[in-house]
Amino acid sequence: MISKLPHVGTTIFTVMSSLAATHKAINLSQGFPDYDCSDELKAMVNEAMQQGHNQYAPMPGLMPLRTAIAGKIAHLYQQQVNPDTEITITPGGTYAIFTAIATCIHPGDEVIIFEPAYDSYIPNVLVNGGKPVLISLSFPDYRINWGEVRSKITPRTKMIMLNTPHNPTGSILQENDIQELEKLVEEFNLLVLSDEVYEHLIFDGATHHSILRYPAIFRNSFVTFSFGKVFHNTGWKMGYCVAPEHLMKEYRKVHQYLCFSVNTPMQYGLAKFLETPSHYLELPAFYQQKRDYFLELMKASRFTPLASEGSYFQLMKYDRISAEGDKDFAVRLTKDFGVAVIPVSAFYQDGKDDHVIRFCFAKKEATLEQAAAKLVHI
Amino acid sequence: MISKLPHVGTTIFTVMSSLAATHKAINLSQGFPDYDCSDELKAMVNEAMQQGHNQYAPMPGLMPLRTAIAGKIAHLYQQQVNPDTEITITPGGTYAIFTAIATCIHPGDEVIIFEPAYDSYIPNVLVNGGKPVLISLSFPDYRINWGEVRSKITPRTKMIMLNTPHNPTGSILQENDIQELEKLVEEFNLLVLSDEVYEHLIFDGATHHSILRYPAIFRNSFVTFSFGKVFHNTGWKMGYCVAPEHLMKEYRKVHQYLCFSVNTPMQYGLAKFLETPSHYLELPAFYQQKRDYFLELMKASRFTPLASEGSYFQLMKYDRISAEGDKDFAVRLTKDFGVAVIPVSAFYQDGKDDHVIRFCFAKKEATLEQAAAKLVHI
Ligand SMILES: CSCCC(=O)C(=O)O
Ligand SMILES: CSCCC(=O)C(=O)O
Repeated sequence: MISKLPHVGTTIFTVMSSLAATHKAINLSQGFPDYDCSDELKAMVNEAMQQGHNQYAPMPGLMPLRTAIAGKIAHLYQQQVNPDTEITITPGGTYAIFTAIATCIHPGDEVIIFEPAYDSYIPNVLVNGGKPVLISLSFPDYRINWGEVRSKITPRTKMIMLNTPHNPTGSILQENDIQELEKLVEEFNLLVLSDEVYEHLIFDGATHHSILRYPAIFRNSFVTFSFGKVFHNTGWKMGYCVAPEHLMKEYRKVHQYLCFSVNTPMQYGLAKFLETPSHYLELPAFYQQKRDYFLELMKASRFTPLASEGSYFQLMKYDRISAEGDKDFAVRLTKDFGVAVIPVSAFYQDGKDDHVIRFCFAKKEATLEQAAAKLVHI
Repeated sequence: MISKLPHVGTTIFTVMSSLAATHKAINLSQGFPDYDCSDELKAMVNEAMQQGHNQYAPMPGLMPLRTAIAGKIAHLYQQQVNPDTEITITPGGTYAIFTAIATCIHPGDEVIIFEPAYDSYIPNVLVNGGKPVLISLSFPDYRINWGEVRSKITPRTKMIMLNTPHNPTGSILQENDIQELEKLVEEFNLLVLSDEVYEHLIFDGATHHSILRYPAIFRNSFVTFSFGKVFHNTGWKMGYCVAPEHLMKEYRKVHQYLCFSVNTPMQYGLAKFLETPSHYLELPAFYQQKRDYFLELMKASRFTPLASEGSYFQLMKYDRISAEGDKDFAVRLTKDFGVAVIPVSAFYQDGKDDHVIRFCFAKKEATLEQAAAKLVHI
């Protein structure tokens, strides 16, 4: 037997983006912007290449980049993390998550995952021989039922995975979630893997309850981030992981032999770009404006928005026209109405279908206008 | 228990490069050039960035890059591989190797590894729950004893790992190795993982016996490559894996959820650069000249060169001055003589010490001259 993932097919993001291309539909499915990243940032990367920074970076990442990240963390979350021992640069957020799981999940270990779940989480656990333990978020507000979490903990429970802001739903962790989490972490000595790739995309003045803020949780945690998601260059595949030294030491043992180090000129460019705090401080307003504009445009449609507190996604509920499931509906939207979206049922193992689809609003205003113009006719 | 790699420390490459930096020694240890990559290639990458190619590439890689690779394979090895289904772009050669192992090594599977072995192989197998079965290459010519390989095959043997040109020794697979390998692969239905990151660095007109040339072996194989190692940009972390469709299908299931896709502008740049075959055809002569120059300079020293048939490494034997092992000798060379090298014993689990050290000659002539000037005084 070769396959470790016999039931895995092509990710829904590739499926829908390909379908969008085939039918020349407006692509609001896969999460990436249709505008470019900063010219200043591109110039910084090019400068590093021209200056000859094209050989291996140090295994944990360039020190100026790690120092800039530590500075951002101090600024935003009032916590000191040690750039020498607690931060590792990775080729993207997805890699950062996989590596945390590969670091500590042994065969038979159970990992609590909330559904709807970003589609790499479960295969990542399976490839490492672990057992995903799935818990549904409440509908339609997508909150965690902590009583249910407690009831699912066994002596094999090793880790609990979180994602805030949450993909696909746009919900964010609340103060009370942190309190409940802290109790469980202490009582059962659980590890936490917190995927915070949409860190700066938080709306309506809400607080991003990054696990980095909470030392009693952070000491058992891996927290993962993405530059691509927030600086509009998803194709650069740059991210990082933050963890306390005792966990980061093990993480680096895996990373050192998984890809060793990460793109050098891009690290130089990002380090310089982070020197200007406005480059990340301006992001919440930039994305909130997009969300609000999209919601305004969609008022005339028969879709009902659910709350999007963060991320670059907006869920919309629709009334069922026929017996079709949300996957068929998403395909029909793409083919017949020219707008590609993601069916939220794709994020549930059992295909749970609440008649909700996901729109990515990280798009130019003109794109959102064109999409809405098509969608209001449904 | 958290650690899967309790016995892993910092890789020897990081150890020696750091020591070199501390003592301002000439760094002939870690394998990377001290000259820059092509200005033309850098301009191609920058152009792609400026044109806005900064979002996700397709999961298996950009089609123009995969097509260019298939063209190179047809040109050099007279084989047709399907760029659509048999090539996947990766963030470097080390990642390409890890992913092949993660794809098919289940807990308890045995993997045959030849020593001296590149230092990621064994931890990669261990992280995936496999069992490394170690076989020493002969000394001092570093050939495979196929009778011994046969004697180590058990019902749990799943894969045999090869590396040609070989790091650290510079030996290359011979015609007879291919014949023996083919017999074993057929008889025991073994998988092969062939690390060919130094593909173009082959000297004295020898043939690179890439596994891609041999359909009867290739149909059970993953073959991994690096752009960084051959195009002088190790810091870009770009590589690829070639495998027959039935294996590549499984490989992509892991890759899709491990890092999903690879740096887009760098893929565009490399695709364009590969359009000019001289960019790779000129590499054997370029590196052979470096090897020959280094050997000439070192004639006046008390080091005895072993054969380097490929790669950018030259092993040298030295007469033991005292009871010191080659690790202590490498440290002493760095500290007292100002030249950092890699002790070959670091590539053996049991520290087997033949009093041989590895020099990386991928350096400017002036660097090689300065190093030799120091080394002739030992
Ligand atoms: C890695 S492709 C998926 C992009 C994404 O995060 C999403 O669309 O949810
Ligand atoms: C990934 S750092 C090691 C570089 C290298 O391949 C070597 O020095 O052998």
